[in-house]
Amino acid sequence: MSPSRLVIIGADAAGMSAAAQARRSRGPDDLDIVVLERSSHTSYSACGIPFWIGGEIASADDLVARTVQEHREKHHLDMRMRVEATAIDAAASTVAYRYVDSGRTGSLEYDQLMIATGAERITPSIPGVDATGVLGVRNLDDGGEMLAALERDPQHVVIVGGGYVGIEMAEALRGRGLRVTVATSGDQPMSNLDPDMGVLVARAMREAGVDVHVDARLTHVLTDAAGAARGITLQSRTGTTLELPADLVVLGLGVRPASGLAEAAGIAIGETGGIQTDASMRSRSHPNIWAAGDCVETIHRVSLAPTAIALGTHANKQGRVAGTNLGGGHATFPGVIGTAATRFRGLEIARTGLSEAQARLAGFATYSTRIESTTQAGYLPGAEAITVKLITDVASRRLLGAQIVGGTGSAKRIDVLATAIWNSMSVEAISEMDLSYAPPFGPVWDPVLIAARKAVDAVAARNT
Amino acid sequence: MSPSRLVIIGADAAGMSAAAQARRSRGPDDLDIVVLERSSHTSYSACGIPFWIGGEIASADDLVARTVQEHREKHHLDMRMRVEATAIDAAASTVAYRYVDSGRTGSLEYDQLMIATGAERITPSIPGVDATGVLGVRNLDDGGEMLAALERDPQHVVIVGGGYVGIEMAEALRGRGLRVTVATSGDQPMSNLDPDMGVLVARAMREAGVDVHVDARLTHVLTDAAGAARGITLQSRTGTTLELPADLVVLGLGVRPASGLAEAAGIAIGETGGIQTDASMRSRSHPNIWAAGDCVETIHRVSLAPTAIALGTHANKQGRVAGTNLGGGHATFPGVIGTAATRFRGLEIARTGLSEAQARLAGFATYSTRIESTTQAGYLPGAEAITVKLITDVASRRLLGAQIVGGTGSAKRIDVLATAIWNSMSVEAISEMDLSYAPPFGPVWDPVLIAARKAVDAVAARNT
Repeated sequence: MSPSRLVIIGADAAGMSAAAQARRSRGPDDLDIVVLERSSHTSYSACGIPFWIGGEIASADDLVARTVQEHREKHHLDMRMRVEATAIDAAASTVAYRYVDSGRTGSLEYDQLMIATGAERITPSIPGVDATGVLGVRNLDDGGEMLAALERDPQHVVIVGGGYVGIEMAEALRGRGLRVTVATSGDQPMSNLDPDMGVLVARAMREAGVDVHVDARLTHVLTDAAGAARGITLQSRTGTTLELPADLVVLGLGVRPASGLAEAAGIAIGETGGIQTDASMRSRSHPNIWAAGDCVETIHRVSLAPTAIALGTHANKQGRVAGTNLGGGHATFPGVIGTAATRFRGLEIARTGLSEAQARLAGFATYSTRIESTTQAGYLPGAEAITVKLITDVASRRLLGAQIVGGTGSAKRIDVLATAIWNSMSVEAISEMDLSYAPPFGPVWDPVLIAARKAVDAVAARNT
Repeated sequence: MSPSRLVIIGADAAGMSAAAQARRSRGPDDLDIVVLERSSHTSYSACGIPFWIGGEIASADDLVARTVQEHREKHHLDMRMRVEATAIDAAASTVAYRYVDSGRTGSLEYDQLMIATGAERITPSIPGVDATGVLGVRNLDDGGEMLAALERDPQHVVIVGGGYVGIEMAEALRGRGLRVTVATSGDQPMSNLDPDMGVLVARAMREAGVDVHVDARLTHVLTDAAGAARGITLQSRTGTTLELPADLVVLGLGVRPASGLAEAAGIAIGETGGIQTDASMRSRSHPNIWAAGDCVETIHRVSLAPTAIALGTHANKQGRVAGTNLGGGHATFPGVIGTAATRFRGLEIARTGLSEAQARLAGFATYSTRIESTTQAGYLPGAEAITVKLITDVASRRLLGAQIVGGTGSAKRIDVLATAIWNSMSVEAISEMDLSYAPPFGPVWDPVLIAARKAVDAVAARNT
C-alpha cells in the first residue's frame, strides 16, 4: 500500500512543528509529508530580526533554527522550497502550485492538508506607500532589504506603529546612531497596554533620544522625483497634520492572518480573518484540512471571544497539536490569554489577559490598581523600578489582565500572573501565594504580591 | 473604658506586620499595642546580611526597613527595646520580662498575646564551638561581629553548612578575597535541592575558587591556647576525618523555631518544634494567644504535613493575617509550598514544592525529568544555560516540585511553577499554558514549558 500524503503549506513554526510531530509516530513508508514554501527559508525566528538589524547577532543564519537540509534528513520531509501554493481544490483534494523562480506550475493530491500560511503585514492604502525606502520587518528578506537600505546611510528613520516591531526597531536603529521617530495612531506606544502603562514606554523612548508622536496616523509617504521616500505626513484625530522628513520609513502596523488562499477555497474563516478550527486544529468546514499558526483564529480564554494573535509560541504549540493528531495521537489546543513581552533597552514590557479596553469590549466591569516597587530588594544598588498594573473583574474578583513595565527582571514576572489567569485565580488567592524571595530577585513581598494585595484592598474598599 | 492590650513578643517581620495591620482597624484608644524586643533592632532584612558583609551595601542601616521611632510615630506602638520576655503565664495572662541592660524585671498583663520570637540558630554540641572566631549570621549583631572579625584579616574561612547562608556567605567572603571552604554533611550543597541539581551549584562554587567538601560533618573546632579557632575537623559517614586550618568559622547549619518560651508556658508545640496555630494564626491551645513567623509550624500544601520553614515572606504574611484578625477582620494563612531562591555570583538557584527525597517521605511515587535550555533565545550573545528539573506525581500527573539552576533570569521562573503547584496543575496542563516570549527573555518554548513537555512525554512513555 502506498503511503498516504500530508501536504503542508508553509515551512515556518506551525508547519514544521506539525511535520516533525506527525513524523514522530508515522514513518516515511506510512506517511509522505510534502512541504510547500514560497521563500527560501524555513523555521526562522521572525522575532529575532530586530536583533539582527541592531547588530546583536551577526547573521540571518543565526535566526534559522533548522535548515531545509536538516528537515529533509532528520524528518524525511519532502521540502519544496520557493514553491508557492496558488489554489486549493477541496473537493478534488488537490493543491495547485507555482515555482516562484521559473513560473512553472503543477498540482498535488493530498489525503490531509495542513495550512500554515502565517500572517501578512498590514500595509495602508495611502499615496507613496510603495516608494523605495518604505520597508517592513516581517521576514528574513525584509531584514536583508533593511540592512541594504542602512548601507545607503539614511539620516532620519520614521517608524510607523508603536507595537512590538516599532519598539524593537526603534531600539535597533537608535542603537546604530540614526535619528529615529516613532509615530503611532494610539494614545501611547504599545496599544495592547493601557495608556497609563504605555506612557512609561514612551518616556523611556524619549529619554533614549527617540521622537515619539502619538495620535498620529500615517496619511502620505512623500517621495522625490526618483520615487524614493523623503518624508511622511501624519494626521491627528482632530485633523491636524504634521510633515516629517524621512529617508527610511519602517512600517510596523501589525499583521493579519494570511488566510486568502483558504478563503478562496471555501474554507471557513472567522470574524478575525483567521481560519476557523476545532480544538484539534482541524478546519471547522473540511475534515481533512487542518490549520495552525498565525493564519488561524483561536479562543481567548478570558474574553471567550475569537482572537487572532500572531505569535511564534502559539504557532509552535498549535503545529504540535495538529501534528500529534495527524500522527494518530490525541491533542487539543486550549486557547490563549494574550501573554506577550518585549524590551526597549533596559526597560522590560509585558502583558497578559485583557487590557481595560479589551475587558470593556468583552463585557466585564473592571477595576484597576497599579503599584510601584523594585526589581531587587530596595537596599541593593542594582534595584530598579517596576510598575505592575492589575485589571480585576468586579463581579468575581478574578484577575482579568496584568501589565508590567520595569527594569531587568520585570518582564518574566508576567508569567506568574499569566499562570494565575490561566487558573482563574482571584486577586485574593494570588496575594496568598508562596512565591520566591531573595534580595537579588525582589523585595520580601514580590511586586506581583504587592499588586495583588492592593487589588484586594481596593475591592474591600469598594464593598464597604 | 480603657483600651484592651495586645502584647507582641518580637519586633521583626511577623510581629511588626501584625502590629501595623491590627493598628489599621483599631486606634490607640481602642487597642494598646506593646512590643517587647530583646535586641536593639526591628524590621530588618536578615536575608540582606550577606550583602552587607560582602560590601554590596554600605551599612546595616540600609537593612532596616523601619526604625523603632517610625513604628512609634506611624503606628502608635509602645516599642520596648532591649526588653526580653522571660516567661508567659497563660493562666494569669501575663508576660514576665527583663531589661537586657539593667537586669531589671517586671510583668505585663495582656488581653491578647502574640508570639513572634522567630528562629534560633542551630549550634552543634561539639568541642570548641564557643571559641573566638566561630560566628553565625543570624541577626544584625552577628553581622557586626563578622565585620569586626574580618578587620582582623583572617586568611582562611571555613563555612559549615551548604544551605542559603553557606552559599551566600561563600560569595560574600570570596568576593572580599579570602580563601573560602564550604563543608556540608550532605551529598551536595543546597540540601533542599536534589543532588543532581546541587552538583551544579558545587561546580560553580569550585570554579569561583571555593573549596567544597561534601559528606563532611563538623566534629571539632580546634583552638589555640588563647581559645581562638585555628581549624576544624570534619568526618564522613564512613568515619574518615579531615582536618582543615581556619581562623574564621562561619556556622550556617540552619535554624529551628524559637519556641522555648511558648513551650515552657504549655502552649501547644508541634512535631517540627514550631508553635501550632489554626489558619487564623491563633494558638491551637490558647484562644487569646497568637503566633506567627519562624516560631510557628504551618502546613505544606503538597506533602500536607506540618512544616517549619524560616522565611521572611511567610513571617510577613502570617503576621498580617494575625494582625487582621486581632484588628477585628477575617484572614487565614493558606500554608506554604517551600518556594525559595538564592544566588551564587551569576548562578541563580531556586526551588519550590517537594524534592525527590521530600516527596518520598510524604508517600508519593514520583518520576523526575530534567531539561537544559537557555535564558534568552540561543542566538543572542547573552544567552546562558538554565537547567529545570520537575518532580511529578505518578498517580495524578500533578507537579509536586521543581528546581531551577542557571544564569540571569533563571530563579524567578520558579514562581511560575510555584503558581502551578499552588493550583494543583498537572504537567500536561502546565505544558499548554500561554507564557510570554521575546528573544531577550527566553527561547520560543520557555524552559518551563520545555520541562513540562518533557515530563508529559516521560509519563506517556511510562504508560505504553
